[in-house]
Amino acid sequence: MKPSNKESRPLAIVLVSGGMDSCVTAAIAHQAHRLAFLHVNYGQRTEARERKAFHDIADHYRVPQSLRLEVSLKHLAQIGGSALTDEAIPVPKANLDSKEIPVSYVPFRNAHLLSIAVSWGEVLGARKIFIGAVEEDASGYPDCREVFYQAFNRVIELGTRPETDLHIETPLIHMKKWEIVREGVRLNAPLHLTWSCYQREDVACGECDSCAFRLRGFQQAGIEDPIPYLRRPDYLKQA
Amino acid sequence: MKPSNKESRPLAIVLVSGGMDSCVTAAIAHQAHRLAFLHVNYGQRTEARERKAFHDIADHYRVPQSLRLEVSLKHLAQIGGSALTDEAIPVPKANLDSKEIPVSYVPFRNAHLLSIAVSWGEVLGARKIFIGAVEEDASGYPDCREVFYQAFNRVIELGTRPETDLHIETPLIHMKKWEIVREGVRLNAPLHLTWSCYQREDVACGECDSCAFRLRGFQQAGIEDPIPYLRRPDYLKQA
Repeated sequence: MKPSNKESRPLAIVLVSGGMDSCVTAAIAHQAHRLAFLHVNYGQRTEARERKAFHDIADHYRVPQSLRLEVSLKHLAQIGGSALTDEAIPVPKANLDSKEIPVSYVPFRNAHLLSIAVSWGEVLGARKIFIGAVEEDASGYPDCREVFYQAFNRVIELGTRPETDLHIETPLIHMKKWEIVREGVRLNAPLHLTWSCYQREDVACGECDSCAFRLRGFQQAGIEDPIPYLRRPDYLKQA
Repeated sequence: MKPSNKESRPLAIVLVSGGMDSCVTAAIAHQAHRLAFLHVNYGQRTEARERKAFHDIADHYRVPQSLRLEVSLKHLAQIGGSALTDEAIPVPKANLDSKEIPVSYVPFRNAHLLSIAVSWGEVLGARKIFIGAVEEDASGYPDCREVFYQAFNRVIELGTRPETDLHIETPLIHMKKWEIVREGVRLNAPLHLTWSCYQREDVACGECDSCAFRLRGFQQAGIEDPIPYLRRPDYLKQA
């Protein structure tokens, strides 16, 4: 595609938390779409740092201010039930082998994010919603599975105007973390601008689930993670 | 069921806008469930009056404060695209025969309301979500059709914890407005506490879609609407 055709490319909304997965997802969407970035604050502990990462990545891809939407879902904290939003529930140390749904699960969170993306996408006339959900390598959140997104696509089809043509894309859904790292490097995704830690905002803790998955992914990809960590788990140092 | 069994009844979340349909839906849910009431402000013009109706109806059914949740979705106004939330788009006079999707349509609104209900319901251990959507007698909103709720139930099944057993109920979905009025009267629903007008907060305008549907429903039911109106449309006076 010639650069002169750039503005005729279809519009895609990308859910950008500011983490690595959403950054690589943006890089994938960027190949064939104009980009609109959606960031949702749901009262998580590290929101300020994630918000900075969102804008840094948006600047990198030259997403205009009019196509950046920041939404606050404070009621998810009001509802509670998750360590990410409820101060009374501590963020646990990582357990990468657990099959349990972790306490960092925010009940039905991705349905809220997708609903916002659909409403905005319908108003903007977007054709795609990109979300960096990962099924196999994630922590067993029920709303990160491909079947969930397939079912949600049916809800979009039935719950929007007949002329609306909007679908969710989950390009990372069956990738391992190390594959996501390699794909990001291949597409020149600005991984150095991303933030993944659930617990800290100055340097990544290296101990929460999210840090642990990320660090293991970089290690398995044979690539150095460009962001600083407070400490790295022993099992990674030994490897 | 004996009164002593009352606390063992399953919990239901009822989406209560403050309008007539949600009031009758609460009356139906009340027959076999303990009630939790959810009210969502999405920046609509008449929010203060609807909020009063919500609490009046909650008081009527003795819903404890801990089981009342008010959520603000101001981002729906931020996204725009509807006369209900966008001051630049005027609320039109009613056209009860139109097959077009009206400008009062808030894109994908009900998916947002249901997502909140599901997250809260999962935390509370509720078994049902009641919503007073009406398919045939409503204004053709795509997210008011039974197929939409069936598809959303599948999303709930796939997007929540395996042990969560939570389903949407739409008891009014195939009722006509006059049948809803009669059902409300039969169940002693406090219709005098409800508010339906899209446009005014002191007395109902009698001219917007919502007033027109309500007034025609009472007329066809042969029952006097207990709330005051500024004026009533000519076609109702003539009937």
